[in-house]
Amino acid sequence: MARYVNVAIGQLGPVNKKDSRAAVVARLMSLMREAHRLGAELVVYPELALTTFFPRWYIEDEAQLDRWCEAAMPGKETQPLFSLARELQVGFCLGYAELSVEQGEKRRFNTAILVDKNGDIVGKYHKVHLPGHREHEPWRAFQHLEKRYFTPGSEFPVFDAFGGRFGMAICNDRRWCETYRVMGLQGVEMVLIGYNTPVHNAPAPEHDDLSLFHNQLSMQAGAYQNGTWVVGVAKAGTEEGVEHIGGSCIIAPSGEVVASCVTKGDEVAIARCDLDFCQIYKRTTFNFDLHRQPNAYGPITMLKGEALLADGSPRHQ
Amino acid sequence: MARYVNVAIGQLGPVNKKDSRAAVVARLMSLMREAHRLGAELVVYPELALTTFFPRWYIEDEAQLDRWCEAAMPGKETQPLFSLARELQVGFCLGYAELSVEQGEKRRFNTAILVDKNGDIVGKYHKVHLPGHREHEPWRAFQHLEKRYFTPGSEFPVFDAFGGRFGMAICNDRRWCETYRVMGLQGVEMVLIGYNTPVHNAPAPEHDDLSLFHNQLSMQAGAYQNGTWVVGVAKAGTEEGVEHIGGSCIIAPSGEVVASCVTKGDEVAIARCDLDFCQIYKRTTFNFDLHRQPNAYGPITMLKGEALLADGSPRHQ
Repeated sequence: MARYVNVAIGQLGPVNKKDSRAAVVARLMSLMREAHRLGAELVVYPELALTTFFPRWYIEDEAQLDRWCEAAMPGKETQPLFSLARELQVGFCLGYAELSVEQGEKRRFNTAILVDKNGDIVGKYHKVHLPGHREHEPWRAFQHLEKRYFTPGSEFPVFDAFGGRFGMAICNDRRWCETYRVMGLQGVEMVLIGYNTPVHNAPAPEHDDLSLFHNQLSMQAGAYQNGTWVVGVAKAGTEEGVEHIGGSCIIAPSGEVVASCVTKGDEVAIARCDLDFCQIYKRTTFNFDLHRQPNAYGPITMLKGEALLADGSPRHQ
Repeated sequence: MARYVNVAIGQLGPVNKKDSRAAVVARLMSLMREAHRLGAELVVYPELALTTFFPRWYIEDEAQLDRWCEAAMPGKETQPLFSLARELQVGFCLGYAELSVEQGEKRRFNTAILVDKNGDIVGKYHKVHLPGHREHEPWRAFQHLEKRYFTPGSEFPVFDAFGGRFGMAICNDRRWCETYRVMGLQGVEMVLIGYNTPVHNAPAPEHDDLSLFHNQLSMQAGAYQNGTWVVGVAKAGTEEGVEHIGGSCIIAPSGEVVASCVTKGDEVAIARCDLDFCQIYKRTTFNFDLHRQPNAYGPITMLKGEALLADGSPRHQ
């Protein structure tokens, strides 16, 4: 038995402040055409793919902030990507900043959507693990204000599409084992992850040289421990003076890397992924029904502030 | 600031059916002396270190089964190890099969204990994730009857010892991200893991060649994602005709391997581990209070049978 889906990485190089949406969409379309020539039926783009990574700046002007966001999807500038998808019969996963106004309440989300071969949005995800900080911290070489600008999502949905079960995660989500597990428990077969990861992490520069290693380690473990494919896609290279890791790759349910990018620019890589390959792991070592012990996992879902013990001491001595 | 603890791996080669407890304890003592010469203050031994890995056989006779277990710890044969620990002022972590009789109820546990420099037991852990199967399955090249012979533990306690906060896990536990996370939430700084891992996994022989990779991947991810040291110690080599992986290693909170064994026999490796190094990760990327989102983790603690949706379909379409 085999259920193949040909998946392409659509890695982006830097997107600068002055780059128009139209210019970026043209690059995304170029990547899609290349992916299509390689036989891809799904192309995965990075987080916040349509703009520069604007949370690196402290922006007080709400109107200016909202201009980095999409109020409609597809909108005027992004429609051509949806049209090309339909024309080529290539689906895609796209990260962008979403401006949502519901019942008079304005919120911004760090969002990813899954679009099928007909150009229809079949899944939407709001980033759960927003990294960085809420207040302006001028001591940093650059800001990371996602916690200030975005509302966090609260769930990891999965979607039946492309003949399998798909999930999405964004950037920092990939470092948290819970991300993969919650989707794994829903039978996810492929997790699509876009990211913008600076090499330099201001609070802990001691491990800047390990950025690529940690990127791959987290995705490999998430893949193996849940028997799922993982597709990690970078916005790479030096964007507005900030160096970002590349390291885009496709990881099998075995934890093995089966495709990867080698540049810091716009680049396509592809893999033929058998979704049934997940079963080797899901039915054996990671047969959750047989082997998980949820009664021992209680602390994992305790809410913040619910310390294990009020005095912070361990439970057993 | 630095809180160093010098930790030694006490890897064992095979222990055969005919080997007496006394013979094995002599090997453990020899490893302890070598670790002491290298400056170790803690030596970590494998899972079920005192005997051959008896769950590979279907044993119907309860008395025979119980003979693989320790009714007392220390017992007559193991007391010399405790005495040597006190003499050398070297603590240890030891895995063994425990025979427990409480209020007339007999239970067997796959157990690990933490023993301090005075030879006193300061922590005990019962393996939570028992792998394998419950019934005799003659089609297998060898059995893996842990689910039949042992009662699972239900918690991951941590213990203040050796100037830091220690936890234990056993073999299959190391493949489950929840193992590390539950201890990480309790501030664990070093997780001690003994294992017996056959190269051959009967239900999924397709990935036998990846056994060592999966061993290291799981422990590296657990270390990094919780900012903790991890010490993994094998019973290695060909025991009673079954080939076991080695791959014993010490992993830093960065996920980097800092010490490892290279044989399949009795072998010592050592690392000087700074427990304060954990803080680089615990205070930044993995500052749980700042960055975890437990409200999105609900499914992780759902009990078996509590499907996400009754019909098994995904939550969002």
